[in-house]
Amino acid sequence: MKIAVKILPRREVLDTQGRAVEQALNSQNHSITSCRVGKYVEVVLNEADREMALNKVREMAEQLLHNPLTETFQLEVVD
Amino acid sequence: MKIAVKILPRREVLDTQGRAVEQALNSQNHSITSCRVGKYVEVVLNEADREMALNKVREMAEQLLHNPLTETFQLEVVD
Repeated sequence: MKIAVKILPRREVLDTQGRAVEQALNSQNHSITSCRVGKYVEVVLNEADREMALNKVREMAEQLLHNPLTETFQLEVVD
Repeated sequence: MKIAVKILPRREVLDTQGRAVEQALNSQNHSITSCRVGKYVEVVLNEADREMALNKVREMAEQLLHNPLTETFQLEVVD
């Protein structure tokens, strides 16, 4: 299965990249309200069961992919 | 509306971050097949129409958020 991990900075944390992109977009006449920039990790693993695959990737995200102090993550089954 | 832009390196491009994460996960006894690392951008804009919002964010992604030579992107309506 292919599982995506979407990682975003916590709301309390100053998202400098997001701020920069927001300003860049607004200065180019794309009028946006806000913007946050994070990471997107797609993991392919040899596991046919959806729940098992999600549990395994959740463990990876908690241990290695995200920083719990500054980031939050969400999982998504891609295929 | 809140629209997410998921940006991943093209298959032909060497994804050094993805390779590093893949090796790190496999060395920690998470057995995975492959992994790609990209960017995740959430844009909030003042536009109630779903199609209009998607079109606007597609334009932003094409002009500013992704590099067409090395990356591909997908859009997702978050809410």
